[in-house]
Amino acid sequence: MASPRKTEVLQLLRDSKDYVSGQQICESFGISRTAVWKIINQLKEEGYEIEAVQNKGYHLTGAPDVLSLSELQSRMKTKMAGSHLLYFDVIGSTNVEAKKQAENGAPEGLLVVADKQEAGRGRRGRSWTSPAGANIFMTLLLRPRFVPEKASMVTLVMAVSVAQGIADISGLPAKIKWPNDIVIHKKKAVGILTELTMETDYIQYLVCGVGINVNQTEFPEEIKETATSLYLEGGRKINRAGLITCIMEHFEKNYEAFCRTEDMSGLLEIYNNLLVNKEAKVRVLDPRGEYDGLSHGINELGELIVEKEDGSVENVYAGEVSVRGICGYV
Amino acid sequence: MASPRKTEVLQLLRDSKDYVSGQQICESFGISRTAVWKIINQLKEEGYEIEAVQNKGYHLTGAPDVLSLSELQSRMKTKMAGSHLLYFDVIGSTNVEAKKQAENGAPEGLLVVADKQEAGRGRRGRSWTSPAGANIFMTLLLRPRFVPEKASMVTLVMAVSVAQGIADISGLPAKIKWPNDIVIHKKKAVGILTELTMETDYIQYLVCGVGINVNQTEFPEEIKETATSLYLEGGRKINRAGLITCIMEHFEKNYEAFCRTEDMSGLLEIYNNLLVNKEAKVRVLDPRGEYDGLSHGINELGELIVEKEDGSVENVYAGEVSVRGICGYV
Repeated sequence: MASPRKTEVLQLLRDSKDYVSGQQICESFGISRTAVWKIINQLKEEGYEIEAVQNKGYHLTGAPDVLSLSELQSRMKTKMAGSHLLYFDVIGSTNVEAKKQAENGAPEGLLVVADKQEAGRGRRGRSWTSPAGANIFMTLLLRPRFVPEKASMVTLVMAVSVAQGIADISGLPAKIKWPNDIVIHKKKAVGILTELTMETDYIQYLVCGVGINVNQTEFPEEIKETATSLYLEGGRKINRAGLITCIMEHFEKNYEAFCRTEDMSGLLEIYNNLLVNKEAKVRVLDPRGEYDGLSHGINELGELIVEKEDGSVENVYAGEVSVRGICGYV
Repeated sequence: MASPRKTEVLQLLRDSKDYVSGQQICESFGISRTAVWKIINQLKEEGYEIEAVQNKGYHLTGAPDVLSLSELQSRMKTKMAGSHLLYFDVIGSTNVEAKKQAENGAPEGLLVVADKQEAGRGRRGRSWTSPAGANIFMTLLLRPRFVPEKASMVTLVMAVSVAQGIADISGLPAKIKWPNDIVIHKKKAVGILTELTMETDYIQYLVCGVGINVNQTEFPEEIKETATSLYLEGGRKINRAGLITCIMEHFEKNYEAFCRTEDMSGLLEIYNNLLVNKEAKVRVLDPRGEYDGLSHGINELGELIVEKEDGSVENVYAGEVSVRGICGYV
C-alpha cells in the first residue's frame, strides 16, 4: 500500500517546474517538517533524484524508471481505466490476480500492475517470457453491460490504445497485428490476452491483460528474430509508469467510443491505419483449410476482411483462425 | 481433510449386509485393533449408528444424513464428475470457490460441496436463501474442449441429471422449468447457475453450481408459495450424500452423451419428457416485446421452440428471455 501522502508530494514535485519549499509542502498537506523530510528521503531511496536547496526548497531533477504504486497513482488522471490500482513487484499472473479481485467485488477500472510476472500466459495457455525490472505486465478489470458476443472486440480496443501509447511516449511506429499483438519493425513487442467470466447472456467481468517488452535489452536466441522491446527498437529507456498512464488515457477514450455503438465503427479508421496487415497478402490458417488472400482490414465487428484469390470475400472471426503474413514474421 | 482410512472403513461397512469383524477390518487396511476402534468411535461421533457385537463384529445399522468428505468419498464411484472432492461446513459460494480452485489448476471433475452457503447467488447476482444442515450446495468444475457457444447447454445437461437423481432417490416427480430450474408440484426446489471463463474462442473452465432444497422444513412467508424442498413434497428426510452421488452418476453419463455430439440431440427426448412447460402455454418475456405461445420443448441447440398464436415458430435462446407459464408459477 502506497502512502497517499507520498503520492501527493510526488505529484506536487512533478507538476512544479520550479522549486517547492518545505513550508509549501507542509501547508498543502497539513503535515510537519519532519514528515516532509521523511517522505523526501523515502522518494530518494526509491530512486528519485531530488535536489534540496536552502531557502528555495525541493526540485525533482530526475525521475528514473520507478514502477511503484506511488509513481502510478501520482500520474494517473483517468476516471475509470486505472482509477483503482494494485501493484506487485512479483506476481504469478496479473490476469489471475485481477480475476480474483473481481470475484471479491473489485470495481470496474481496477488496474493490476506488476514489474515481474512468473506465470504469465499467452492465448490458450502458451507461456510468455517475463524478466524483472524491464517490462510492463498489467491487467485492466472491466464490468461491461454489453452481451458476451461483443467482448472479443475489447482486445482490439486495447490494441489501438497500446499502439497509440507507445507512439506517443517513444515515437516508435507501433502497429497492430490482427487481432491481439503489437509489432514494431515486424517484431512482436506486446501481447494482449482478454478473458471473460460470464453466465449465459451476462458478462460478470472481463479482464484485459497486456504484456509489453519495454526496456528489455536482450532476448533468448530462439525468439530473437521475432521478439523485440521498445528499447531495442528505439535505442533509449522508456519510463514505464508514464507509458502505462498514457495507455490508460487512450483506452478510456477509445472504450467510451466502443461502448457508444458496441462495435468498432467509431474506431474503424484508426484501427485500420494501425494495422500492419492491411492491404497485405495473408495466409488464413483456418482449421477447415488454409487459404491465401488480400487483407482489407477489419469490419465493424472486428472481423478481418480477406479477399480470396477467386475474388470472393471472407470475414474472418478472431476466434476461428490465425492469420500469418506471407512475407516475413507478421 | 478426511482420513482415507475412515472413508474406506465406512465404505466397507456400507457395502456389507452382514457384520464385519474387527479382524477383517485390520487385515483389509493393515491397521491395528486400536486404530479400528478409534475410527469406529469417530464415525459414531459423526452420527453413524454402528452396532458392535462380540464375536461377530461391526454393523452399520443407521446412516443418518451426514454430509462430510468421508461420507461423500465413500459413496462416489464416478470417473470424472465428483472424482475430486472438497467439502465445507460453511462457504461463501461454491461457485466462487470452484472458480478459485480452477485458477489454481484444479482438475476437471472437482466437486465443491457445502452444507451452508452464505453468499450464494442466482442468475445475474440475485441472492438465494441458504439455511444450514438441510440443503445441498455444490459446484462441478469442467474443462470442456467444445467452443464457448455450446457452454450454456451444460445447464440443461445438469438439469436433466438433477431431475433424474431426485426421482431415483426420493421418487418425487421432479420436472425441469426451462432453462435452469427444477420444480416439484409447480414449486421451485433447485436452482442451477453455470459460469464460464473463456478467451475469444476457448473455454478455460466452466463451473456448474446447483442448489437443492432437500430437508428444509419451512420457507419464509414471501417465497412459501413458490419455493419448496424434497422433504416438504415427499414427507421424509433424504440422505444428501446419496443424492449428490446419484446426481453425479447421472451427470457423468449425460455429459458423455452431450460431448459426443456437442448438442442436446442425444438427450432431447429425455429432456423434453422432464420439461414442465412442454406443450404448455407460455409467455416469452422478450425485452423487444412479450408474446404468448405454445411451447413444443427444446431443439438440439437447447432453444425452446415456441409456436406463436399466428402460427409462426420462434426458437428462444436461454440468454435472451425468460419464459413464464401462463397458469400458475411455472
